[in-house]
This record gives sequence, C-alpha cells and structure tokens, in this order.
Amino acid sequence: MPEVARDPRPPYIAVIGDGEPRGPDAHRILEWAEEVGLELARAGATVVTGGLGGVMEAASRGARSAGGVTIGILPGADASEANEFVSIPIATGLGVVRNLVVVTSANAVVAVGGRHGTLSEIGLALRMGRHVVALSSWRVESEHRLGGPRIHRVRDPREAASLALRLAAAAELNGS
Amino acid sequence: MPEVARDPRPPYIAVIGDGEPRGPDAHRILEWAEEVGLELARAGATVVTGGLGGVMEAASRGARSAGGVTIGILPGADASEANEFVSIPIATGLGVVRNLVVVTSANAVVAVGGRHGTLSEIGLALRMGRHVVALSSWRVESEHRLGGPRIHRVRDPREAASLALRLAAAAELNGS
Amino acid sequence: MPEVARDPRPPYIAVIGDGEPRGPDAHRILEWAEEVGLELARAGATVVTGGLGGVMEAASRGARSAGGVTIGILPGADASEANEFVSIPIATGLGVVRNLVVVTSANAVVAVGGRHGTLSEIGLALRMGRHVVALSSWRVESEHRLGGPRIHRVRDPREAASLALRLAAAAELNGS
Amino acid sequence: MPEVARDPRPPYIAVIGDGEPRGPDAHRILEWAEEVGLELARAGATVVTGGLGGVMEAASRGARSAGGVTIGILPGADASEANEFVSIPIATGLGVVRNLVVVTSANAVVAVGGRHGTLSEIGLALRMGRHVVALSSWRVESEHRLGGPRIHRVRDPREAASLALRLAAAAELNGS
Repeated sequence: MPEVARDPRPPYIAVIGDGEPRGPDAHRILEWAEEVGLELARAGATVVTGGLGGVMEAASRGARSAGGVTIGILPGADASEANEFVSIPIATGLGVVRNLVVVTSANAVVAVGGRHGTLSEIGLALRMGRHVVALSSWRVESEHRLGGPRIHRVRDPREAASLALRLAAAAELNGS
Repeated sequence: MPEVARDPRPPYIAVIGDGEPRGPDAHRILEWAEEVGLELARAGATVVTGGLGGVMEAASRGARSAGGVTIGILPGADASEANEFVSIPIATGLGVVRNLVVVTSANAVVAVGGRHGTLSEIGLALRMGRHVVALSSWRVESEHRLGGPRIHRVRDPREAASLALRLAAAAELNGS
Repeated sequence: MPEVARDPRPPYIAVIGDGEPRGPDAHRILEWAEEVGLELARAGATVVTGGLGGVMEAASRGARSAGGVTIGILPGADASEANEFVSIPIATGLGVVRNLVVVTSANAVVAVGGRHGTLSEIGLALRMGRHVVALSSWRVESEHRLGGPRIHRVRDPREAASLALRLAAAAELNGS
Repeated sequence: MPEVARDPRPPYIAVIGDGEPRGPDAHRILEWAEEVGLELARAGATVVTGGLGGVMEAASRGARSAGGVTIGILPGADASEANEFVSIPIATGLGVVRNLVVVTSANAVVAVGGRHGTLSEIGLALRMGRHVVALSSWRVESEHRLGGPRIHRVRDPREAASLALRLAAAAELNGS
C-alpha cells in the first residue's frame, strides 16, 4: 500500500500526575500541568492522560484551550467519568492496569508532581521504552549503569513540553 | 459545570471478528464488516476495532470511506502496527488483555464471523454490560434465565449497524 | 538440567461459575461444584478458582475435604478476601482481568452453571487453548467450522471431573 | 465462620530483579538473590517471583534448598516455562501485566539489582501499598513529602530478608 498517502500522525504525549494534588505545591502543580498541555497542543501534539481529575484534568484543559485533541484512558467502564476536557474518552475497565495503557499509547511522557501511582507509571513508561520528562516529580536513579530510555528532569513547563516533543520525534526516528 | 456546554459525544460501536478470516465465507465476512463500518460512520458513530487486519481493517476501511473516525485498540506497544484506516491508534502493550478494552470502550458491539478470540470478546462485552449484535457469528445460549445485556442475531450488515446504534442509544439512556 | 529429577506437577483444573448462584437451580449448582472439587482432588489434581464465594467456594470446599490443594486467584489486592477453603491465595489487583489468569493457569476448565462472567471465562479459556467441560452451563456454537479446543457438555459432576482430567492429560501430551 | 480454625497463612515475600543480570555485578546479584530466598524460606515465608531466570531463579533455588514453597507468576500461558525451582507455577497469559500480580500477591517485596522492569515493579508495589526492600537496586525519592509504603535500602541479603519479614508482619497488623 502507498505509505506516502498516509497522513503523518501527530505525536502523542502523555501527561501524568496526581488526580488530587495536595499540600503547599498543589496549586503550582496544576498550573504547570495546564501549561504543559497548552504548549503540547500548540505544537500540534495529541495529549493523552488518565482522563480523571487533578493533573489529568488540568493538562486536558490546557490542551483544549489551544484547540488540541485530548485522549483520556479511563480506569472504569463508563466514558462519562472522563473530565469535560477529554475529547476522546477510552473506557477500559482495567482498573490499575490502565496506567500501562496511558504511557504505552504515548511517544513520550511528562510527569508533573505525583505520588506512588505516578511512580508506577514512570516505571512502566521506561519499561515500555518511553522517555520521561519529570517536572517537580520523582528522582529515580539506578545503582547500575543502564542504557535505554531515561528520566529527564526539567525546571519549567515550557521546557517539559519542548523536550518531550524532541524525545518523541527522536524515538520515532529510532523506530521505537 | 455547565453540562449543556459539552458537545454530545458520538456513540462508539466496536466491530469485532477474525484478524485473518479463512474458509469459504472469508470473502463475504470481510464485505459485511466493511459495510457495517460504512453504515456506522454514515450514522455518525465512531468505529472501534482491535486495529489490526481482517475484519478490523475492513470495518475501519468502510468507516473511513464514509468520512468516519476510527479508533484502533492495539495489543502491542507500537502504534505503527495499526492498519492504515485507523485514525486514532491506541497502542496498549496489553497483549490478549486488550480485547477487554475494545469492547468496554464501546457502547455496543457488532461481531462479524469470528473464532475463539471473538467469542472471548463477546463474553467480555456481555460481562461489561454491552449488548452484542451477531452477524454470522457465535450462537450463545445460557441454560439459565438471565437478565441484562444480550446477543442479538441479525442477517445483514445494515440491520447489524442500525440495531447496534439503537442498543447504544438505549444503553446511554439507562446510564450504562 | 536433569528433567527426570523434577517431580511431575499435578494437573491444575479450574472450576468456574457464579459467585452467588440464584434461582431454582442454585442449590444443585453448588452441590455439583462441591462434588467436582472433591472428585478432582481425589484424583490428585490441584483445583484453581477465583477464590471468592458461590461455585468458587463450593469447589474449594469439596477439594479440601478430600485433602486437596486449592489455588484462589482473587480480583482484589487483599489475600484475606479468599474463602476459607483456599490453601494458596493469589491476590492479583487485576479486577475483571483476573478471569484470564484463572483459566490460563489451568490445564483444563470445568464450568458449573454461570452467568455472563462465566461466559467470558469460557471464551478466554478457548482463546488460550484450554478445553472446557460444561455442566448445566452455556451452550456455545460457532456458525463456522473451527478446530482447536472445544466445549464438552456433560450431565453430572463425576463425568465433568473425569473428562477434565483426561482433557488436561491430552493437552499435556500435545505440549499445550 | 470460626476464623480460629483457619491455619495462619505464611507470609508471601516477592523477590524481584533482572531475568538476565549483566555487567560486573551480575554474579554478586545472583548470589544475593539466592541468599535472600534461602533466608526467607528458613523463616517460613513463601517466596513469590516472576518464575523465569536470573534473580527469579536464584531466589527460588535458595528457597527450595531450605525446603520452602515457591510461587512463580509467569507472563506466558505455559506453566512449563517456569524454572525448575518453582513449586507452584501460575501461568497468567498477561505479558507485561503479570508484574502487577507478582508484587500484589506478596505482603512485602525485596528488589535485588534490576533494570527498568524492576523499577516498574517497585512503583507498582508502592502503588498497591507494599513496602519494598532494595538491595543494590534503584534509588527512588519524591520531591514531595509522602506517607504510606516506602523503599528501604539495605546492604546485605540477610538484612533484606529480615526487614521484609518485619514489614510484612506490620502490614498484616495494619490490615493492608
């Protein structure tokens, strides 16, 4: 089949983080997630999240405000659980296992803050060969020298979005 | 939040069946799957499939030929495995478990032909509360009287598409 | 490594069915499940179930009464949810997805009664290449000629147990 | 039901790590995994692993040498893929998703070395409320203050085993 005829698919970037951020940083975390979503959509990326509240909703809101497409990979079986900024809800029925789909469906991942659920998604992302950009999130270091995908720590949402897009483009070229 | 402001989401209808139909019926099965996809897209539905070949590709091709949106829920971790008629590929990394997502993400399911994988999807669909329309597919009957979602056998692709759409609309009203 | 030195593993037979049987047949279903468990354990098999109530508990009780080993593959994350006749609880955290593990971990499957969850397990069992023995359970027929594993309908619990053991032994010989 | 009549279940401790350790530390990692398995079995614990090679096999070998019970939660559908030191193989058919079951089925987790797959298991363990003891494994720190389960770094296999057993006992008391 003539592969040239196929439209290039936009990069999918997952934004992961706490569904209900708490503590003194909560407000900043949500602002950053929204700005990451906005910057990704401006650059033409599709934003993938877990479809619920907190960081997921903020990133989706940001992306939609820039006219972007947002995919929400929900843990439950009911698409109406998606926040209102999800344009394409995917009700999975998978429970905890849906976290694997959030990161695997994306070409690169941005973690904004986050607790244990986010750490598990970071681990799954690396396991599935996806680079992770971390903004005020987990520090993860191996005691051994490892190749492959990495966690890249950044300081602000713009840097997070642009680095994720570059990593996604590089992964595409490498065929992964 | 102002729910009225939200666009109504189009119904999602999953089309399931063999990734590589064989035997004397193979040609007819693929034609029917394509026509089911076409009719669903004409009615404004989004067509969900497993994103690979055979019935999945035929249904997606039909839907795209009518300008529809097609979601492909892939078993592997690489979105480029999707057939060329998938507009929104979701690489899950789930293997066999992705079948649960195909049927759960939809409001109703159409089975066209199919072998054991399709039977497992029919069972999962009913388990998750989704009605199934069966076109030249499995006959499934309980020895006990059961309520809830059912398998509806039909004789042609148009009937399959229109019944699936009616069942999806009724499920929406029932809040399931 | 010297394969002869390894103890032969006992066959694993899954018993699946309703966690809360209702209707006029409920009592008989539970009696049959218990007798299936008993006969399987007498023959030296390990009985695998979903670890909860109803048919799962009855089959486990029967197996334990004959001194057998019972494995309970639980949907939740807490092993204490297992019924008291489970000797080896496996808390999976998988929710609905645990059904795949129940049937895949076994060499053959016995379905006693059952509703939609049981049908999904029957479908998954066939999909994973496991034969299914059905006792007062689902009738499932393809409109197409298919090879591979099958559903075998039987009339009493003894026949169910002995046929499941023969099918498991044959599957072992075939290397599946 | 008379709960007193029920035998106390032994603690289940998962040992996770690389299926094929490489590099200058590989030999030491395997020795340590074997010693962790041995110490756990001596203390009466059941050792849970992913059932394949490397750290999984070494831990199982150690446990069996002390007369212990070993459970192997396999990714594939064929129980014969388990290493020869697995006494209870569970073929899941889950692929990558089986990692969730390895850690959820245990009361506490010991990580010995490990690459990205191990990191994903550490994240999933914490997500599911299981404490993790890390021996020459990942350093993981949040930039935020978090309660709940933690990673505990230790220096030798004996300390790893004894701390894991204490954490499992404490978790049992807390009802988690």
